[in-house]
Amino acid sequence: MHRTHQCGSLTTANIGETVTLNGWVQTRRDLGGVLFIDLRDRSGIVQIVFNPAYSGEALAIADRVRSEYVLSVTGKVVQRDAETVNPNLPTGQIEVQITEIEVLNGAKTPPFFIEDGVEVDESLRLKYRYLDLRRPEMQKTLLLRSKASKIFRDFLDGEGFIEVETPILTKSSPEGARDYLVPSRVHEGEFFALPQSPQQYKQLLMVGGIERYFQIARCFRDEDLRADRQPEFTQVDIETSFMNQDELLGMMEQLMARLFKETINVDIPLPFQRLTYAEAMDKYGSDKPDLRFGLELIQVSDLVASSGVKVFASVVEKGGEVKVLNAKGCGTWSRKEIDDLGPFAARYGAKGLAWIQVKEGEFKGPIVKFFTPEEIEALKERTGAEEGDLLLFSADNKKVVADVLGALRLKIGKQLGLINENEFKFAWVVDFPLLEWDEEEKRYVALHHPFTRPRDEDQHLFETDPGSILAQAYDIVLNGYEVGGGSMRIYKRDMQEKMFAALGLSPEDAKYKFGHLLDAFEYGTPPHGGIAFGLDRLVMLLSGRSNLRETIAFPKTASATDLLMDAPSPVDQGQLEQLHIKLVKKPGEEKKVHS
Amino acid sequence: MHRTHQCGSLTTANIGETVTLNGWVQTRRDLGGVLFIDLRDRSGIVQIVFNPAYSGEALAIADRVRSEYVLSVTGKVVQRDAETVNPNLPTGQIEVQITEIEVLNGAKTPPFFIEDGVEVDESLRLKYRYLDLRRPEMQKTLLLRSKASKIFRDFLDGEGFIEVETPILTKSSPEGARDYLVPSRVHEGEFFALPQSPQQYKQLLMVGGIERYFQIARCFRDEDLRADRQPEFTQVDIETSFMNQDELLGMMEQLMARLFKETINVDIPLPFQRLTYAEAMDKYGSDKPDLRFGLELIQVSDLVASSGVKVFASVVEKGGEVKVLNAKGCGTWSRKEIDDLGPFAARYGAKGLAWIQVKEGEFKGPIVKFFTPEEIEALKERTGAEEGDLLLFSADNKKVVADVLGALRLKIGKQLGLINENEFKFAWVVDFPLLEWDEEEKRYVALHHPFTRPRDEDQHLFETDPGSILAQAYDIVLNGYEVGGGSMRIYKRDMQEKMFAALGLSPEDAKYKFGHLLDAFEYGTPPHGGIAFGLDRLVMLLSGRSNLRETIAFPKTASATDLLMDAPSPVDQGQLEQLHIKLVKKPGEEKKVHS
Repeated sequence: MHRTHQCGSLTTANIGETVTLNGWVQTRRDLGGVLFIDLRDRSGIVQIVFNPAYSGEALAIADRVRSEYVLSVTGKVVQRDAETVNPNLPTGQIEVQITEIEVLNGAKTPPFFIEDGVEVDESLRLKYRYLDLRRPEMQKTLLLRSKASKIFRDFLDGEGFIEVETPILTKSSPEGARDYLVPSRVHEGEFFALPQSPQQYKQLLMVGGIERYFQIARCFRDEDLRADRQPEFTQVDIETSFMNQDELLGMMEQLMARLFKETINVDIPLPFQRLTYAEAMDKYGSDKPDLRFGLELIQVSDLVASSGVKVFASVVEKGGEVKVLNAKGCGTWSRKEIDDLGPFAARYGAKGLAWIQVKEGEFKGPIVKFFTPEEIEALKERTGAEEGDLLLFSADNKKVVADVLGALRLKIGKQLGLINENEFKFAWVVDFPLLEWDEEEKRYVALHHPFTRPRDEDQHLFETDPGSILAQAYDIVLNGYEVGGGSMRIYKRDMQEKMFAALGLSPEDAKYKFGHLLDAFEYGTPPHGGIAFGLDRLVMLLSGRSNLRETIAFPKTASATDLLMDAPSPVDQGQLEQLHIKLVKKPGEEKKVHS
Repeated sequence: MHRTHQCGSLTTANIGETVTLNGWVQTRRDLGGVLFIDLRDRSGIVQIVFNPAYSGEALAIADRVRSEYVLSVTGKVVQRDAETVNPNLPTGQIEVQITEIEVLNGAKTPPFFIEDGVEVDESLRLKYRYLDLRRPEMQKTLLLRSKASKIFRDFLDGEGFIEVETPILTKSSPEGARDYLVPSRVHEGEFFALPQSPQQYKQLLMVGGIERYFQIARCFRDEDLRADRQPEFTQVDIETSFMNQDELLGMMEQLMARLFKETINVDIPLPFQRLTYAEAMDKYGSDKPDLRFGLELIQVSDLVASSGVKVFASVVEKGGEVKVLNAKGCGTWSRKEIDDLGPFAARYGAKGLAWIQVKEGEFKGPIVKFFTPEEIEALKERTGAEEGDLLLFSADNKKVVADVLGALRLKIGKQLGLINENEFKFAWVVDFPLLEWDEEEKRYVALHHPFTRPRDEDQHLFETDPGSILAQAYDIVLNGYEVGGGSMRIYKRDMQEKMFAALGLSPEDAKYKFGHLLDAFEYGTPPHGGIAFGLDRLVMLLSGRSNLRETIAFPKTASATDLLMDAPSPVDQGQLEQLHIKLVKKPGEEKKVHS
């Protein structure tokens, strides 16, 4: 019996047709000797009916099937009786009267129900991922992911981009995150590394005259995992020659608009808002602000520097700052509600959390008494504080103030229902600093990566004030997530050498680690730049899921384990010998080798 | 200056327009103070002219540029003088009179000329791959590869296939080739493996109800490399549920026809020829026969079994066979020419190479005297030997006879010019044996892989004669290359257990290695099967290149080295410590760690 239709595709237009369907038993109900089965395939569900009146032997066979059995059935599509029409099902107007059945495979009772919204422990879902994937939600997400990839490809193909595959077995590059290493069997004592991104290869493709490159590329970082990280992840990797930052950003906006329109039918207004890094940090305390609501941070250092609040005065004197978040409408919160914000703020580095409520036209709260009436007036004006408002103060170095108030802004924004969950608010964050001082290593590190080009007007600052150089770098943010980022790249050897020197890399080390790139810059390298989008995160936002793992067919857990395959796992001693390595045992520990 | 046109796109239609071009200096010629530069970008080449009459300062700047300098130039498109038209260049009717120039970057003299057909040592090309990629041939091949991938995706998307990404960090599966291993930092003493193919994942996707899956997937095999192998390679990986072999093969033929039509405009006749494995081995001595010419092998065991040629008689008696290749028209070869075939045949296992020439109506050659006139007549009739033919005999076990005569057939076919290099001759080879006896291991091994489904009519043979079971497996061959292969898969646990048992795997080992798959088969697994195409090889055949490395942007050498990046390479001791491994040193050897 050859499948003629998909379950979910049947409509009243098929009434009278004889169809053959293949699928899984979702549910079965026996109503007085008549058997109703909801049959499910990738397209959806349809009701099939076994009735002594027309099903013959098929009824007896059907009587033995259980949930998740795989069936092939043939029968006639008929209109349902008016009282049995199911308006919640696309196929709810019809049913199929079955005359033939073949049980293609049986099924044990699954460890959880195959339907959306069931509360199941995630580790059980991951161990039985092949059952979890049957849930409509997972099917929908994987379909959307496939569609999103296709839209990226179609758009970029239309703009003359060539997809080029770059190596997975490549060279360890100790800048950046921890590498996954692969011991070489042929070259004793040597290792490949899995790429953290195809960064160097894509730049070399530009040197190679490819001009417009893209790749939907697997990348690897051996980092300690958080909820929104995976050891392997996918980025849409893009690089162009002869385009400047504005041209590239404009094209990428078109790409995003098409992606959102063609996947979830959302119109994204163009052009995107652009914020400098400095503005973003100042107003939102974050370089990936959620712009679906206001609640901007307010600078008050000047107003409180000489106030009676000693901690404010001393922070400002030491070069720190004092900023305020005006939590509109939270002036009625109880003392306990306000105090509960303290531990939250502390997680982001706050040593305390001063506050003022506006009640009955007055500033109220423990610190009010330390202000002069003029200071109170000035604060009122600067913060726009009105009846019912709550002013939250953070006083510390710039980073802590941004972290604390940025986090409070998000928390309170959510709590107050200021966020429209159906809105997609894109923005570019531009003019990032090129370098960042690392207190531990006592040297500058690259904020993006060492190949980022300084702004033309800042290039002279390498000698005098490298910390103040701004970069031709940009992030694309959406609803509080960074969904992509990139930069124009350095394309001249002397500039790249200056950059390496600023990072504290000796000429010898620079040559050892990046010699191929420095050499390449001497053979006619075009001006180039690019961007990479995080596909997993974009799919997460497109599909309204809350976790990257929901967007990946076979994800790893927070401890980098594949629960389905049981990987990683011990290997044969012989395999290790071929690779010229052995395990380092802790004393007294048994060797962990499968034999 | 914003680029307005690509160099290769300019035609007489642009005459009179002012254009801005970006590109590389291919050549420069100074003719009496007028400077002609061939400017190259990805699209092609155009002649730009600097003339004191209109170029002003631009001429002085242009005078300093050399090969591979990167320029941005602006000027007017004009018709060339009749005598300077270059009919070999698509842009040969026009030239661009330059008024503005910017040197975007300089270039040292490259280590080889950036043009096709230059004799350059391959290792030099790989070390400077970023220059090699500028050659039109490489650009064309990468463009074709990108296009081929897109056609695969568009076709499969149109047929309802979903592209799903499967993990690169997965579990070592000691069946098959050698794995690349990745030590885990988090799980001490444990390892991930890079996938040799997404085989198990794609089957689990079918269990998961994806129904139609594909992926253009990176695969890894740590094998000793030959000219046509790479440690990492790309396959177009396809799996379907509810389709039988005929349906799948028919769809894949459509896919191949579209691929060849849309990339190189070749019409592939459908349907493809189908050969059983037995036929292919019998007629061509190969399971991937080149069908662009005949020269089929001829069975003569019965005719020579009782002849006076002792070695023939004894081979047949021991269960071997004697076959003949009739090298049409080689009857005039000298004794030396014929003898030269001996060492060639020996490479494929031949202990000797008997032959007969047909000259002046007579069989001639050392073995002729051992045949009776009746035997000669029978040989003549069976082999169709005519004046000027050369009969080459191989007598040995089946495998050696196939290898020797299969190789001779290809060699002589080429030598005689029987192969039309512009023809693309596809075929399916079907009905492969399921199992193959491994003399060394004294057990059966899977000819394809352990998940291949036996033919329905052969399934009872597991108990009695497993070696004679034929599989629902198929290879797609093109001009003597296997460009893809696949099978219908086992989808019931008891059948899979029988298969593992036939391979000598204990139930415990089967559970340890493949427990997740055996479990999955108990929860409603649909009948499924699939195929994988070798993308590198298909692109090689489509582009008429002779080496897989020519189809890959950054390939590895025969010793699995990336000459551009210098990978693999030593890593820091600290990295190894984090991974809980250390190097095994040969006595007296220095530790190979970069510090």
